Amino acid sequence: MKCIYTNSGISEQTIKQRKTELSTYIKDLQKIVKDHNYDKDEGSLCLVDDASLLAEVKKMVEKKRSKNLKYIVNIGIGGSYLGTKAIYDATRGAFDLFQKEQYPKLLFLDTTDAEYISQFISFYKKEDFTPGEVIFNIISKSGGTTETAVNGEVVLQLFKDSFENWKEYTVVTTDKDSPLWNSATSLGIDVLEIPKKVGGRYSVFSAVGLFPLALSGVDIEVVMKSASTTRDSCLNGDDSAIESAIILFEQMGRGMAINDNFYFHIELESLGKWYRQLMGESTGKNGKGLTPTVSMGSVDLHSVVQLYLGGPKNKYTSFVYTNSFQECELPKHNTLSHIKGIEGKNMGDVMMAIQQGTMRAYEKMGLPYSETILDGVNEKEIASYMQFKMIEMMLLGKLMQINAFDQPQVELYKIETKKILAEK
Amino acid sequence: MKCIYTNSGISEQTIKQRKTELSTYIKDLQKIVKDHNYDKDEGSLCLVDDASLLAEVKKMVEKKRSKNLKYIVNIGIGGSYLGTKAIYDATRGAFDLFQKEQYPKLLFLDTTDAEYISQFISFYKKEDFTPGEVIFNIISKSGGTTETAVNGEVVLQLFKDSFENWKEYTVVTTDKDSPLWNSATSLGIDVLEIPKKVGGRYSVFSAVGLFPLALSGVDIEVVMKSASTTRDSCLNGDDSAIESAIILFEQMGRGMAINDNFYFHIELESLGKWYRQLMGESTGKNGKGLTPTVSMGSVDLHSVVQLYLGGPKNKYTSFVYTNSFQECELPKHNTLSHIKGIEGKNMGDVMMAIQQGTMRAYEKMGLPYSETILDGVNEKEIASYMQFKMIEMMLLGKLMQINAFDQPQVELYKIETKKILAEK
Repeated sequence: MKCIYTNSGISEQTIKQRKTELSTYIKDLQKIVKDHNYDKDEGSLCLVDDASLLAEVKKMVEKKRSKNLKYIVNIGIGGSYLGTKAIYDATRGAFDLFQKEQYPKLLFLDTTDAEYISQFISFYKKEDFTPGEVIFNIISKSGGTTETAVNGEVVLQLFKDSFENWKEYTVVTTDKDSPLWNSATSLGIDVLEIPKKVGGRYSVFSAVGLFPLALSGVDIEVVMKSASTTRDSCLNGDDSAIESAIILFEQMGRGMAINDNFYFHIELESLGKWYRQLMGESTGKNGKGLTPTVSMGSVDLHSVVQLYLGGPKNKYTSFVYTNSFQECELPKHNTLSHIKGIEGKNMGDVMMAIQQGTMRAYEKMGLPYSETILDGVNEKEIASYMQFKMIEMMLLGKLMQINAFDQPQVELYKIETKKILAEK
Repeated sequence: MKCIYTNSGISEQTIKQRKTELSTYIKDLQKIVKDHNYDKDEGSLCLVDDASLLAEVKKMVEKKRSKNLKYIVNIGIGGSYLGTKAIYDATRGAFDLFQKEQYPKLLFLDTTDAEYISQFISFYKKEDFTPGEVIFNIISKSGGTTETAVNGEVVLQLFKDSFENWKEYTVVTTDKDSPLWNSATSLGIDVLEIPKKVGGRYSVFSAVGLFPLALSGVDIEVVMKSASTTRDSCLNGDDSAIESAIILFEQMGRGMAINDNFYFHIELESLGKWYRQLMGESTGKNGKGLTPTVSMGSVDLHSVVQLYLGGPKNKYTSFVYTNSFQECELPKHNTLSHIKGIEGKNMGDVMMAIQQGTMRAYEKMGLPYSETILDGVNEKEIASYMQFKMIEMMLLGKLMQINAFDQPQVELYKIETKKILAEK
């Protein structure tokens, strides 16, 4: 992974000045890592070289893995699945469901949409699974998330109706001693722990992400090693994450309302959704915050790019692309098309030209942007990107003088919802 | 479909004043409909009661339909597929790919991502289709879209390699006499026409959307009738679309940067993406424009809603929800959860409480919003919503004094891309 800030619109001098403001905080972060201190808000930094976490997850994977495992059904919402899905989708690609021989697969049940859950139930019943073909993985940090409770209860009922030993195929990931933890352990259901101070949007490298990913076949040692290397370089000499945080902060100060994250790999849409939560919940408070949006190349060139190029200049764009593509050659002669210059080309080269052409158009229009270049789309690069972005968000929070780890206003709708449920 | 603007933040008096500004334009639109005038920019309004269009599409559907049809592979990008996918996903739901008996299915190949297309090729080869199991549907208004040309050529090569009579199973939808039209007809491939003045983002009710939808089993007569009823009422006495356009315009004038479209039905994410293009390309020019974003309830309550409630007040929110849900009852006793009040409830009631609770929180925070209430998620309601939004966008363009039908800046990246391709 490589970052380029040539067209960020922020001068090197400004960046240099701001860096000194962050030096104390960087030292704090270094100390948290060194002390393996999970009691701080930034405790998630300790996950990626936590040998006992890795051992615990691997043990659980061994216990739950079976040759006939087909689906790992993940019941969780927000930070309980967005990171897992980001890595899964990036590595499996958009046609995973068509790859009939590629098992086990991850499924995600997030919201309590009645149609959606009914369709899942219908699918589940038709499949008539045998024991071991399905694992239910319930993830809720607090143990008190309404959607997860609702979907969890519905799905557990299904599961209990189909298998006598349903508990063997169920795993719960939650905070130690949460009500969910206690009821799971008292029923004899296996549990995995989320460290108390590791919030949902920073939890992908805890059991929240590692367990389902490993069970589905992702090499979590590669994930951990890559994230750990990135963490160490970001906090020790490679200033890319620091500079990125400063640029976002400065652009916000210059009136940018939106941080558009423009991914030129269709498999990275879920990664964008993960980032959207990370930035939205971390920076959106006290009347401040950048609104994160996700754009997909080249699809959105035929959708919102007219607005981006011709509309208000209120966006700072973060382009994410790769310089290595799978070989996919075009036919030497066109059958239908009159477009010249595509015959016999590699598809990756066409995409690269579209991506570079887009950046040149942004430059010509005076629109500021950064570039993140991934060395292919794989667990190593995605893990590195995610760790980088989590550190960036901590630093951005510090510059904004806000708490990047809480989400106080989310309570507002929860209170109103509870009132309405009580009225019924 | 019903609209409520009680919390729009714009006074009735302001709305009333602006209405007079639009009265001439409304008369123009009425005349276009009456004259069935496809030569105007607003010609898309004539689609929904065009009997010859419906007959032509039905004829083609009869010709291409076979009992063993499994996949209709749609090759197109932007306006060539977003509307089709919106209706398809809304009616089929999120688990379509798991419903193994439910054929034919629509597939969409939009971008020229090498991994993505390679995965499709691998899937196609493994399936070893027999004649009639797959229809290739190539959609390109201009006939000169790079992505569609590239994917089209790759896929046609596959198709030619597998079936001698591949032309029988191929359809091209494009402008009459475009280069693509001409090469298709000269090869003897069936073509469907897009009226010249009907732009991509306004084309869902042309053959672009109708043909694949009808072939997949959507009742397009219901679609047309619903859209036509909505069109007529929006232009004759029901002022909801007019008021919505005025509110968006006024909120933009008050400094709102973002129009967040918050859908409380997971099947409507693709509808949001269709709307994103409609608003982005129609209003984003001359340095003006609202940035459309798509949020999904209840997923995004656990992601960006912290920002929406606690961050900058720069968003006008359009809530879209329904008041009828499929029955999906929760177990009478919880197995794991300690959350009170969910036992035995209907899942739809829980979702409704979450949705209403969210709106109450917005109201308490002084955040303006509109409500669109769908009478269920089905082709009738979605068609009505889409026609409503297209009319709203024409009216908004008029208020903004911009051309809501062109996309001039999109050329910028195309020019740069072509330069880069020529360099290689």
